[in-house]
This record gives sequence, C-alpha cells and structure tokens, in this order.
Amino acid sequence: MKTPRPAFTIHTLESPFLEERLQRKINEKTKPLGSLGKLESLAFQIGCILQTDQPILKKPQLLLFAGDHGLAAQGVSAYPSAVTWQMVLNFLNEGAAASVFTRQHQIALKIIDCGVNYDFSPHPHLLNYKLGKGTKDSSIQPAMTLKTCTLAIENGREIIKTLPGNSLLLGEMGIGNSSAASLLMSRLIDLPIEKCVGAGTGLNETQIQRKKLVLKMVLERHSPSKDPLTTLAALGGFEIATMVGAILQAAEENRVILVDGFITTAAVLCAYHLYPYILQRCIFSHCSHEKPHATLLKFLDVSPLLHLDMRLGEGSGAAIAWPILQSSCRFLCEMASFESAAVSTKSR
Amino acid sequence: MKTPRPAFTIHTLESPFLEERLQRKINEKTKPLGSLGKLESLAFQIGCILQTDQPILKKPQLLLFAGDHGLAAQGVSAYPSAVTWQMVLNFLNEGAAASVFTRQHQIALKIIDCGVNYDFSPHPHLLNYKLGKGTKDSSIQPAMTLKTCTLAIENGREIIKTLPGNSLLLGEMGIGNSSAASLLMSRLIDLPIEKCVGAGTGLNETQIQRKKLVLKMVLERHSPSKDPLTTLAALGGFEIATMVGAILQAAEENRVILVDGFITTAAVLCAYHLYPYILQRCIFSHCSHEKPHATLLKFLDVSPLLHLDMRLGEGSGAAIAWPILQSSCRFLCEMASFESAAVSTKSR
Repeated sequence: MKTPRPAFTIHTLESPFLEERLQRKINEKTKPLGSLGKLESLAFQIGCILQTDQPILKKPQLLLFAGDHGLAAQGVSAYPSAVTWQMVLNFLNEGAAASVFTRQHQIALKIIDCGVNYDFSPHPHLLNYKLGKGTKDSSIQPAMTLKTCTLAIENGREIIKTLPGNSLLLGEMGIGNSSAASLLMSRLIDLPIEKCVGAGTGLNETQIQRKKLVLKMVLERHSPSKDPLTTLAALGGFEIATMVGAILQAAEENRVILVDGFITTAAVLCAYHLYPYILQRCIFSHCSHEKPHATLLKFLDVSPLLHLDMRLGEGSGAAIAWPILQSSCRFLCEMASFESAAVSTKSR
Repeated sequence: MKTPRPAFTIHTLESPFLEERLQRKINEKTKPLGSLGKLESLAFQIGCILQTDQPILKKPQLLLFAGDHGLAAQGVSAYPSAVTWQMVLNFLNEGAAASVFTRQHQIALKIIDCGVNYDFSPHPHLLNYKLGKGTKDSSIQPAMTLKTCTLAIENGREIIKTLPGNSLLLGEMGIGNSSAASLLMSRLIDLPIEKCVGAGTGLNETQIQRKKLVLKMVLERHSPSKDPLTTLAALGGFEIATMVGAILQAAEENRVILVDGFITTAAVLCAYHLYPYILQRCIFSHCSHEKPHATLLKFLDVSPLLHLDMRLGEGSGAAIAWPILQSSCRFLCEMASFESAAVSTKSR
C-alpha cells in the first residue's frame, strides 16, 4: 500500500507575462546583454518565486536542523556522536561558522533540535521538535517509523508557518548524516552506493571504503520502495525528515529556499520526489567538496552558485552565497536602464 | 636602452612564523580540517598580506579607472566610444551595476578619469587624472608615449597614497579596452593573439574574427620589446597604465588588492612583469566569461574565487566577491576553537 502523501498544494510558477517582463527589465539595464551572467538568471528565478519584477528579499532565516543517527555506532564518521550536541551549544554560544556568517549578513539563526541525544536547557534560538534521542541504527532496522517520519514532516511544516520574511536558508548538523544522505541518494536516484559516498567530516581512503561497505549492507537490509516516505523513514534522519517538511511548506508559501550542501540537497531530493515543483523555489548555494554532491546536483539538473571547496554543512555555504542573492535583486530593482541613464545602446 | 623601472620596493611577504601561526589558528577552529575550503586559503593569504593572524579589512575602496581608446575607431567594440563618458555619468549618478553593488557592501566608489573623451563637471567622486582625450590609435602609432605611460604610473601611485583603509578593489571602464588587454596579454605572455581575444561587450562570431585581424595588424605594427613599460605604452590604455601604478603602490603598502575581470587582470600582468611579488597581494575575484581570462589566470597560476559567467567589468565581479573576503577574515577572528568551545576533536 502506498502511503498517502502530505497534502500540499505546490503549483508550477510558470507565468509567461511575468517571465517576459522580468527578462525585458534585465535586458534594459545599462550593461551588455547577459553580462551579469548567473546574477541575471538568479534575479529571474527570484522574481518568479516571489511573483514580481521588483523582488525584495525580506528577513532571511537560517534554520539549522540537528539530529543524531543510530548508524553512527557503526563507525561511519570521523567524529564521535557527542559532537552533535556540542556543536548545538557552539551555535547557541555564537562560536560556529554558521554563527559568524549569519551575524555578518544579518540572517536570523534558529537551531531546531529534531532529535539530538542531549537534554538542552531552553534557549531563545533553540526550537524543540525532538523526536527521540537519535534515530535507530538503520543497519539493523528502519531509522524511524513511518509515523515518526510523517510527524517530522508535520513539524517542519509548523516551523515554517511561524517564520517572518520570504527567504529561507537551510542547514543541518548531525554526526552520521552524510551517511544518511548517501543512502537516500543511492536509493532515490538508483545509483550504486559507491558513487554516493564521500569523506564526510574527513575520513581517509580506508575509512571511506569501510563506510561504503557499511552503507551497502544497510541498503541490502531494506528492500527498495516506490514510496519516498518509506525510503526516508528507513534510511533518513530526524533532521532530514523535518527539513523535507520545511521545504514542502516553504515551497507552498513561495518562499525563496537557499540550499546548502550535500545533506540539505538530499533533503531537497526527497521533497522533489514528493512534489517536483519544489525545485522551482530552490537556489543551490554551492557545490560541496563532498564528492557525490556534484552528481546529485547534476541529477537535479541545477547549477550551484559557488565552487569554493567547502564541505562543512551547517548552512555555511548558504550563508556565504546569501549576499549574491541580494545583489541579484538589487541590480534588478536599482540599476538604471539605457533609457533612464541616456546611455547609447549597441551600435551594430 | 631599457627604461628604468619605477622605484618601488615590493618585498616578498614570506614569514614562516606568521604562516605557521595562521595555519594553526585556522586548523583549531570548530570545523573539520580544511572544511571551509577556499575561505581558509583566503584567510591565510589576507593574514599574510596584512601581516597579522587577526586580519580586519578596513575601508574598502573600489577605484574605477576610465579612459578612451584611439583603437576603437577600428570598430573593435560593439558599442560606440561615447558609452565611456555616458557610463562615467551613470556611475556618478549611482545607476550602474558598480554603484549598486558598492552601495550594498558599503564600499567607497571613486571614478578616475584617466583620459575619457569628455569634459566632466567636477564631482566629489570623480578624480581628474586626465592624460588626454583618449589614446592614439595603436594600429597606427603607439597608444601613448613612454613619458605619458610613466606619468600614468605616477598618477596611479599618487591616488593610492591618499586612500584610507587597507583594501583596494580594482575596476575599469573604457570602450575598446578589452582589445588593449588582449594585445598586452598576447605580447607579454607570448601567446598568439587568436588565443587572447574574446567577445568583449558582445561581438558576434564574424565581428570577433574581424577584431582578431585588427589586433594582429596592431601587433605587427609594433616590434616586441623586452621592456614591459614600452609594451604598455604601445598597446595599453591610459586607464590600464594608471591602474598598473595603483597596483604597484598598493602592493608596496601591503594593501589587499581585489582584482576584477579580464582587463584589470591584464593590468596585474603588466605590474607582475615589473615586480613579480605584487601577485602575493592580489586576490582574483572571479573568472570572467571573456574567454582569454581563464588562460591569463592560469598563466599567473592563480585561482579565482567565483565562476558566475560575469563579463561586465567596472569592478562588478570584485564587488560581488568582497563579502567572501570579509567572511574569511571573520571566521579567522570570530570562530571558536575546539578548545574554547569544548567540542571533541576527531576520534580517529
């Protein structure tokens, strides 16, 4: 039996009149045609998402979804699981990379405890959507039940409903979650696990080989399902499933969704399998140094903005790319046209 | 006879103790080793330029060097020469891309009239270093005399001496100056002109072929010289020569120099031929869509930060890359270390 999909209404954004107006406005700016490169396609996409030729990005929010992974017990990460909660405290104390970059760009930062193995004291920047103290070990059983997975998606949806502004940056933290992302990628795009695994937090070649063997075993443990939710429940993580809900809701509300690295892209992949149109709202901030990310971006047929060899996660790539989104909106809204500035157009 | 080089003292920045301190500080931040990718090498380089492990970028200045080109009469550009002065007015009226992006990032913007064919009224953001109303047509005679070229370099030097802060962004405007850049590149790195020419402001394939023929003729007109200044005088432009002086002075003062696209990189190439150590102070903001730029960057053995298919010039790529430089300094200065945040290090 196929699980009923969450009841979202995510429509296509196609709107020929707006698209034509946007392209004309871009072309009339005082610059050679197309000379702002990807900034132009970005301005076009953001205009389409916000349904205006005068797009203004408002109150950006970086949501950092955190959770622990039972699979980490199999030694798939270079760091111990305790690093998940330690890093959550580091975010709350404003000492992490994500803290620094969000402060630089005045992006609000919220950490979502989706299921970290730690009891946190209340904190104004910490949202409690805990589904447990880490998922089950997916090499033995499904990471979570279908019911918990559905609840995670509901949680993600709730979180977005309360957010101000029109722009969402996605990030994550969870020791073991690059393994979960690799598993989801392998199953959902039907690619051998070997092509979906990278060094994560910094495994050496021998450790990567071991990681591949463990993940291969996990996939053998769970028979393939045509239902993306079943796959997400079996192989995913609390933070990934909650993020899927956030993506679906943000897409439904026509928010600009700025995707970070490999793990957030895996969450986008899950959401895409549920509702393909979500991709129209997603901007891919960078191509991670984590090898399978490039393959995954290619599968989604999307072009990331940055190639800075970053592989940190926690929304750091999204935060670094953020000012480029602002630049694209600003040139569209603020630059003079050939006519308004009385600049001669092409002579031939 | 070889022309005496301008008397600068540009030393190597090598400082093993500082380098070791910088690398250790980068490695101790709460992130997997190397996971901030190019942001890490950038922080390292800026620390070396500013000679501190606590680098802070101060009062960034985008200098926009403008000048006209006699060679434009040969039809090497898609736009008429009048666009140079019209765009200068557009900068002063804050309607150009460079205006928008410098406003966004609080970068001071100054336009240097190095030799535009127009009489501008005084303006607080316009510096008058006019060397003529455009260079001579280099298909007939040298673009400028050696004396004028030396004066341009002196001008560039003077401009930098009065600048506050420690960070310089380079930009240019001048119809015909991608041709001058191609000529300099071809001569200085001894590469056939065909490999040094792009579409400039947007020539079609036939027009590019014509541009190549014209530039080939120009090179045949001027016999090669071992002296970079003679080459610069024969083939360059007022704005390029003035920029060379600015680069030399900024390097001498250990300022961070953020290079824009193809034409500013050609100015860096000239400066590099005079004093190779200037390269240590240069950060290359992006790889332009103008084809020969990638080749030129490769020749200089440098890695640009962005690949956004931009090809506008006027410092737009440098301004877009600016916040990434700030991010690199900020993570170095503000991020917690494993020790200060009590985060566990790698378990194996």
